[in-house]
Amino acid sequence: MFQEKVETRRREEMIPLTLQVAEALEKSRMRSGLCVIYVPHTTAGVTINENADPDVCKDILMGLGKIAPLNWQYSHGEGNSDAHLKASIVGSSVVIPVEDGKLLLGTWQGIYFCEFDGPRTRHVLYQFIPAAPTQVVEE
Amino acid sequence: MFQEKVETRRREEMIPLTLQVAEALEKSRMRSGLCVIYVPHTTAGVTINENADPDVCKDILMGLGKIAPLNWQYSHGEGNSDAHLKASIVGSSVVIPVEDGKLLLGTWQGIYFCEFDGPRTRHVLYQFIPAAPTQVVEE
Amino acid sequence: MFQEKVETRRREEMIPLTLQVAEALEKSRMRSGLCVIYVPHTTAGVTINENADPDVCKDILMGLGKIAPLNWQYSHGEGNSDAHLKASIVGSSVVIPVEDGKLLLGTWQGIYFCEFDGPRTRHVLYQFIPAAPTQVVEE
Repeated sequence: MFQEKVETRRREEMIPLTLQVAEALEKSRMRSGLCVIYVPHTTAGVTINENADPDVCKDILMGLGKIAPLNWQYSHGEGNSDAHLKASIVGSSVVIPVEDGKLLLGTWQGIYFCEFDGPRTRHVLYQFIPAAPTQVVEE
Repeated sequence: MFQEKVETRRREEMIPLTLQVAEALEKSRMRSGLCVIYVPHTTAGVTINENADPDVCKDILMGLGKIAPLNWQYSHGEGNSDAHLKASIVGSSVVIPVEDGKLLLGTWQGIYFCEFDGPRTRHVLYQFIPAAPTQVVEE
Repeated sequence: MFQEKVETRRREEMIPLTLQVAEALEKSRMRSGLCVIYVPHTTAGVTINENADPDVCKDILMGLGKIAPLNWQYSHGEGNSDAHLKASIVGSSVVIPVEDGKLLLGTWQGIYFCEFDGPRTRHVLYQFIPAAPTQVVEE
């Protein structure tokens, strides 16, 4: 298990985690298995999406703001129900297969911490679960 | 593997599962690994969100009702396509890391069964997947 | 680890994977554990939903098209930001518990590859993570 601090600087922000996850995987020495990224917060999430053009993250945050707007008639008194709703839409974890000690992310995939109610000090957990020793790659 | 019955009482409802999952984890005796919560239904889901103010769950159900309304022009004849759509948005599983025999939920996180087409008798599965014995906590 | 090619034929399409996953599980010879289905793309996803009436998939694609429309004012120049947004809503993986060598899918559940920006040649990964040998089914 690895835990990392993430300092967010805006109310809504997508922060790349791919390099940090790859580094934790290397330290874990796991060759084959499952990488789990877990966010222990209720107004933040984690997703996998495009790692090349930063406009994609901008569009995702813009889109989520239209899908779950801040100004609906919510009951919760803290004024951040939109962020709770986004957390349940995007999810609090992602899993990625690992083979030969590498994350099997696609060419264009990056891992992003999703802040929906910042700025805050956040944490993220990385966990590595080994596959059975007999598994092999097949097509 | 543990299976539990969930009796829902309304069309839409979020039912806390955290205590039940913690109890199943204790019975499993797993110290370190991954807890998987799986919903074997297509008009229900499972999510992790705020465990303190029940208004957050109310806001999430209200918000999902605006995001995927009952009265769109759907093709499926059973009149519950909104519930199928919500199930795919929220998802049919969550995973939570376990260390020292404890769920690593954040302070404000609770686990919720999400009924989108009740009332019904539902089931939920809890599964525990061990980490490699050599893993340690690092920051 | 198993990798499979998926040829999609429309811009948006849900393609059943259940039989292929069951076949890969059989080849893996895993009796008890977790099946992970992973999509290494940023404009596609994977979900679990109704396996009987194909109108449900039609309604899900229609609904996602209303939730994340093609014609919003996006920044990303490729004209497929709606597909990236849908990928983050639906997610890039699903997990399914396995017991006695069988996927514990519910009666009405099927696994679907979700194409949001096709037609394209896509890939999907199936991974099998064993449970601890001591686990038993309890209710």
